[in-house]
Amino acid sequence: MTSKTEKVRVELGDRSYDILVDSGLIDSAGKAIRDAAGGGNCWVVTDDTVAPLYLDRLTTSLAGAGLTAETITLPAGEASKSFSTIENVVETILDGAPGRNATLIALGGGVVGDITGFAASIVLRGINFIQIPTTLLSQVDSSVGGKTGVNTRHGKNLAGAFYQPKLVIADTSVLDSLPRRELLAGYSEVVKYGLIRDASFFGWLEQYGDAVIDGDADARRHAVRESCRAKATVVAEDERESGARALLNFGHTFGHALETETGFCSDLLHGEAVAIGMMLALELSASLGLCPPEDVVRARAHFKSVGLPDGLPSDQGRRWSADVLIGHMGHDKKVHDGRIAFILANGVGDAFVDRDVDLDAVKTILELAIAA
Amino acid sequence: MTSKTEKVRVELGDRSYDILVDSGLIDSAGKAIRDAAGGGNCWVVTDDTVAPLYLDRLTTSLAGAGLTAETITLPAGEASKSFSTIENVVETILDGAPGRNATLIALGGGVVGDITGFAASIVLRGINFIQIPTTLLSQVDSSVGGKTGVNTRHGKNLAGAFYQPKLVIADTSVLDSLPRRELLAGYSEVVKYGLIRDASFFGWLEQYGDAVIDGDADARRHAVRESCRAKATVVAEDERESGARALLNFGHTFGHALETETGFCSDLLHGEAVAIGMMLALELSASLGLCPPEDVVRARAHFKSVGLPDGLPSDQGRRWSADVLIGHMGHDKKVHDGRIAFILANGVGDAFVDRDVDLDAVKTILELAIAA
Repeated sequence: MTSKTEKVRVELGDRSYDILVDSGLIDSAGKAIRDAAGGGNCWVVTDDTVAPLYLDRLTTSLAGAGLTAETITLPAGEASKSFSTIENVVETILDGAPGRNATLIALGGGVVGDITGFAASIVLRGINFIQIPTTLLSQVDSSVGGKTGVNTRHGKNLAGAFYQPKLVIADTSVLDSLPRRELLAGYSEVVKYGLIRDASFFGWLEQYGDAVIDGDADARRHAVRESCRAKATVVAEDERESGARALLNFGHTFGHALETETGFCSDLLHGEAVAIGMMLALELSASLGLCPPEDVVRARAHFKSVGLPDGLPSDQGRRWSADVLIGHMGHDKKVHDGRIAFILANGVGDAFVDRDVDLDAVKTILELAIAA
Repeated sequence: MTSKTEKVRVELGDRSYDILVDSGLIDSAGKAIRDAAGGGNCWVVTDDTVAPLYLDRLTTSLAGAGLTAETITLPAGEASKSFSTIENVVETILDGAPGRNATLIALGGGVVGDITGFAASIVLRGINFIQIPTTLLSQVDSSVGGKTGVNTRHGKNLAGAFYQPKLVIADTSVLDSLPRRELLAGYSEVVKYGLIRDASFFGWLEQYGDAVIDGDADARRHAVRESCRAKATVVAEDERESGARALLNFGHTFGHALETETGFCSDLLHGEAVAIGMMLALELSASLGLCPPEDVVRARAHFKSVGLPDGLPSDQGRRWSADVLIGHMGHDKKVHDGRIAFILANGVGDAFVDRDVDLDAVKTILELAIAA
């Protein structure tokens, strides 16, 4: 940690924890983990993409803090988010006869974090869990808030636990190793925080978004800190997603439908789908007379300027259908009583949940986007 | 429900819930479940021993309350407590596209309750969970307190979740169908509540224990109510088992070692092992000068009078070893920093946790019991 290290507190009563944000934190992670979780045995769960890059530095830091650690390396990718992976991880940890003061450390992106957190919630009905997210998406989104889980044959993240980490360590320097497309996909969620509740942060992103993406350390630290702070505030209001937390799904109702249609393949990354979804949500809001058209224009200009997609991808051969996409929306786990929750906006920085949106208006917006 | 129906409140903040205790409650379960969990789709999880006895009555009651229910019937027995069962139950429920207001109902003993609760905690990261325990052991112990889980290759209950039900319905009339040996094994946990914190309840059991076991409805209602109340008090003090809840392990440190040695087979039921363990814990307490010898005599007299085992079973061919049993104790998940937690007693109704027991004293007690 340095004097520049930002600390964001997630206030959840006796489950409260800190998020540390700075460049180079992996090298001091051992001490921070020992302070947050005590001196029990550690297991690092990572994947075969991240392990060669950062595992040695982490285990060196753990050893320096007097912590012994074993490593579980998973194949990189969404296919690891399965019950069988969870069972294997849990049994592997039990091989080491953990006490209740044992600690699981997730070193990786969202997949590693989701599996590790779920496993930590299950072993002995709950041991310590630490997140070291290594993608921008996981630093600003999935590592904060305690959602963990696996995919099922019915869809993504349909099984899991709410389980909070003891500490999140967001080392912004590791983002240097991310492909630009993945970085941008994560940036999509950064923009989301500005669009839903913080117009001034959106203004800052208009000015410094390129610096964030191009690797400026101060800009990255600020963007990750602000994003974590925004998410922490919403999560503190609504840990188990019964109210305010729904705002975080801005762009996700549309985005999830697009991902369902593309089979969650790498042609369309989650963050890209969310970016397109946010533009559609803004356009829907404008068509309903809620959002000033100039705010839609402003958002689109920023998306274009940093390189985020702002409309449906026109893949060779793919034919989008408004009705099919709306059908996908009806199968999301956020549907209550058959009513689809849309997050609309009264403008930049002012989003809200609406469960009574006229699906004809949604269809019109989708048809316009498909024709564009 | 009748005017005689007892209601015990488990106070856990926004996770608080009621335990209803009475004869014949299954026939009014539908309305109680609808009141506690709302009108979402229901799934009943049961086993092939319990289903023929009580499933029709439950589904009739659910239908009468306007609730639709599907049924998942598991093979009876401990082998069902596996990750693969959990995955199958979760996927089967997801087949029905549950909303977050869906409800899982456990109709059965401890195995069914543990699996159903764990599955309910996982589906969509948590849906409603209702317990209808059908054994005395599950009515007075496992259905109260939110411990759920499965067995792993390393031992019993090493993976799971703390997850509270919305309601527990203890229909004492279903105990009529229990084999007497199982009933007695459950009664062992009833006695435990008297021994650890409630000397007057132990006195009541000395007077009415036979009536409880022989099927007197009023006596059963009182015994189950008092047991649930005792457990609810301890759980409310310490939901996640970091302190007071350890008292509930009275007799379990010894008992678990005995079960490990017998491979958790049906030669020694859990409740029988706990009964023996409680006697050993009392003898240990007396040998350390803590418990008056007359209290040990009093407990033994009650155990003998109702038919509970009060000493090590002398199976043909089995040779007990004090050292081996102590070794098993060191592998319990309640061990912290290598120190075994013993629950000792200053007398009937006054138990406490001691992590500094001289293992030589433990060995002496075990050797005396083996030689007896």
